[in-house]
Amino acid sequence: MDYQKFLAGRTQNIKASVIREILKVVSQPGMISLAGGLPSPDSFPLEIIDELSSLVIKKYGSKAFQYSATEGFPALREALAAYLNKKEIRATADDVCITSGSQGLLDGIGKVFISEGQKIAVEAPTYVGALQAFNSYGPEYVCIKTDDNGVIPEHLEDIIKLFGIKLVYLVPTFQNPTGRTLPLDRRYKIADIIQKYEVLLIEDDPYSDLRYRGKPITPLKALAPDNVIYTGTVSKILAPGFRIGFYVAPPELKTWLIRAKQGVDLHTSTFTQAIAAEYLAGGFLDKQIKKIIALYQPKQEAILEALDQHFPKNFTWSKPDGGMFIWVEGPKGFDAEACYHKAIEQKVAYVPGKYFFTGPDEGLETMRLNFSMCDADTIRKGIRILGDVIRTFS
Amino acid sequence: MDYQKFLAGRTQNIKASVIREILKVVSQPGMISLAGGLPSPDSFPLEIIDELSSLVIKKYGSKAFQYSATEGFPALREALAAYLNKKEIRATADDVCITSGSQGLLDGIGKVFISEGQKIAVEAPTYVGALQAFNSYGPEYVCIKTDDNGVIPEHLEDIIKLFGIKLVYLVPTFQNPTGRTLPLDRRYKIADIIQKYEVLLIEDDPYSDLRYRGKPITPLKALAPDNVIYTGTVSKILAPGFRIGFYVAPPELKTWLIRAKQGVDLHTSTFTQAIAAEYLAGGFLDKQIKKIIALYQPKQEAILEALDQHFPKNFTWSKPDGGMFIWVEGPKGFDAEACYHKAIEQKVAYVPGKYFFTGPDEGLETMRLNFSMCDADTIRKGIRILGDVIRTFS
Repeated sequence: MDYQKFLAGRTQNIKASVIREILKVVSQPGMISLAGGLPSPDSFPLEIIDELSSLVIKKYGSKAFQYSATEGFPALREALAAYLNKKEIRATADDVCITSGSQGLLDGIGKVFISEGQKIAVEAPTYVGALQAFNSYGPEYVCIKTDDNGVIPEHLEDIIKLFGIKLVYLVPTFQNPTGRTLPLDRRYKIADIIQKYEVLLIEDDPYSDLRYRGKPITPLKALAPDNVIYTGTVSKILAPGFRIGFYVAPPELKTWLIRAKQGVDLHTSTFTQAIAAEYLAGGFLDKQIKKIIALYQPKQEAILEALDQHFPKNFTWSKPDGGMFIWVEGPKGFDAEACYHKAIEQKVAYVPGKYFFTGPDEGLETMRLNFSMCDADTIRKGIRILGDVIRTFS
Repeated sequence: MDYQKFLAGRTQNIKASVIREILKVVSQPGMISLAGGLPSPDSFPLEIIDELSSLVIKKYGSKAFQYSATEGFPALREALAAYLNKKEIRATADDVCITSGSQGLLDGIGKVFISEGQKIAVEAPTYVGALQAFNSYGPEYVCIKTDDNGVIPEHLEDIIKLFGIKLVYLVPTFQNPTGRTLPLDRRYKIADIIQKYEVLLIEDDPYSDLRYRGKPITPLKALAPDNVIYTGTVSKILAPGFRIGFYVAPPELKTWLIRAKQGVDLHTSTFTQAIAAEYLAGGFLDKQIKKIIALYQPKQEAILEALDQHFPKNFTWSKPDGGMFIWVEGPKGFDAEACYHKAIEQKVAYVPGKYFFTGPDEGLETMRLNFSMCDADTIRKGIRILGDVIRTFS
């Protein structure tokens, strides 16, 4: 039987994630993987989760296992409102909605806001999971130029005017893949621009709690609340396996996102929501964030030192104040994908940066390095080998 | 700011669930609700879940909390393959994929298979959650005529020919809302029809384990495996709060459904999947199904007896061998929605049947009664009051 005939028109837009394919290749034993984007398994508070699982069953009983509201489990919404208030985001429990990972919100954004062929603005490079969520809904991407401080506000304004952009997607803090952070002065400029042109901006913020240096920067949501949908996740501060994301949207838009989610999964797991609620309300988060930072910071130092020591002088890289990634740019003509295949032979893996761009032939000389998964010694070894591969290769 | 301008064209198709609105109304204290579709909280094996949560943390450690494969947690896929084999569905672990509730599969069906304006065939009446999932993708519905034994195969064939139908959605066993079950001879006929016309059929099977009388009937998936996507859930045999559904699809289609899910939520909660895996593999399910049946069967007897005793003689209703619902049909001219408002005043709630039809002015005289939530005495009281309301009303 010809199964192709069953596929909808939009289905051709739904591509397999190249990065997920790379991750399958590099999961072989003996491989030093700087390719993934996973938090370290050592960062999961297993004992606390064990304790809270039992507590939740005692405290909430069958309510933690029944169908529940699409908006989210009330205790979690309340705990997250307090968490967001500390980030200068004004939100009541009623303003906070739960999704199945922040990916769940990105799918909702596509479903509710993206028409086939609509032009939306994204960073170049950008988070591929967002592209994957949006692609099903058939947008065209317009790239916002970036430098070491993230997107360039003036270029954002230019493309809003030129293409009549209504929707912008940004990861302003410790971005995946670059680790870059938009400074406060640019945030003010962007807040002004999106208000002036009545643009809706998605602020995706999975990494801001993983800060190793410097002070927190006010989120865009706090600067232009009516124009921003802010989304976060517990994936990097509790565990990804909970599949819990959350967002705060203007009330007029929240209604639509909730309706869309009803059709997608009714609601997110009540049990994992209840555990996350107790984790936040019980005061475990602050201690755990300190532990995670103590775990990741030496790894970041290790990778930055090793890059200084082993990478050719005509390569440059980001030195982020937080997050999980370093972005490397080789000289023009350096082929990061061809180099990846040579590196794999030497048992070191990374992600060629071109996969984070929406256009063809962009970022050919770039690479994304993750430092959260391996221990510091392994990272040093990996970077040394990678430096050798690059030298013999270029 | 005018937020309407941000909405995509398809967004107008995304309606709030009327039934969810009804359920909000009827959650007031003192209300006897025969309206919901929830399993009884007494059916959740809380002690087993508590035990298995700890076991999973010991056994799988951080693997139960890390990002994992979109297809599902390997141990759960394996346990479900064994579960499905007992239902005559041939499937290896690799054939079984996990979704966030069976709702997750229904959204995937819409995303991958339904083009805007495409005609798809559904039972009249049908499960509204499926309509809600499909609506975002803009189908037109063609209704298959039903009688006390579910859909009429000859009518299905007629509309396949007439409208060039490629996709059919059915709940063949203890259907929601009617409780009806398609007998084996009709299943054979339907299997022949979908093979003859190369049609894809979604077999949604959340209730077949809740059988109070008679013998299991072979699923359509076993009769026409290449033409059927079978989906089930642990919501009625473990707990809905786990948000775990599963499906078996032809391999050529599975690939697309997995890609679509990557964009929607990356994967379903690893922790709840691991608990469900241990629940199935640990042999808890069989005992628990017996307990659930022992809990529901007397409730079903109570509602059927009370209907005999208290409902007017010109009303008829289904007498299903399992599931959670009774479908009542009043005489022509009986207005089940107006009656609902009178019943609410008397503190008894149900769902007017018209909401389960896709066309307007259909099923005006019908009502769906649920018997899983209330205890037997409350059910008797509710039906007695409802009988009185109907008599004074009609």
